[in-house]
Amino acid sequence: MILEHALITVRPDAHAEFEVAMTKAREVIAAAHGFGSLRLLSGVESPDRYLLLVEWDSLEDHTTGFRESPAFLEWRSHIGPFFDGQPEVDHYAPVAGLP
Amino acid sequence: MILEHALITVRPDAHAEFEVAMTKAREVIAAAHGFGSLRLLSGVESPDRYLLLVEWDSLEDHTTGFRESPAFLEWRSHIGPFFDGQPEVDHYAPVAGLP
Repeated sequence: MILEHALITVRPDAHAEFEVAMTKAREVIAAAHGFGSLRLLSGVESPDRYLLLVEWDSLEDHTTGFRESPAFLEWRSHIGPFFDGQPEVDHYAPVAGLP
Repeated sequence: MILEHALITVRPDAHAEFEVAMTKAREVIAAAHGFGSLRLLSGVESPDRYLLLVEWDSLEDHTTGFRESPAFLEWRSHIGPFFDGQPEVDHYAPVAGLP
């Protein structure tokens, strides 16, 4: 399992629209090969910041399998209009013994 | 539920020791009021960076209940020696419909 970790800043006037758009975007990403789960959370200290956590079977399922597929453009077409700048995306792997 | 989100940079020579220390520290935090779960993951793009995700029943269970208790000092005594700088800690709340 690889965890995609994305910090997304959303325009202050677009929180509700972004959250609705993510429910549609989730249907797109959930159909991708290697997709495991998706969680979206909103910042307590920074209300415009959202934390997106997506579990993938492997790094490549995200970085090439999904990102280089037409589905990625569809995913972004739902949520991208509400971004305030580019998301910060990186990946994390489980530590043995600390699931 | 509130998610504590901590980005921890660990000294390059201390990864293995930090991971063992976290298994001990977990026993301390798991006994705290309002603790739900703990996950530790290591950075793919930045190997010295760890992502710690702790679920709490409420924000206050972490920020006052745990941090202001003697258990916090014990928790930090296990893992703090391996930090390279101060962790970046913030909190996130679930978004309705996107658990």
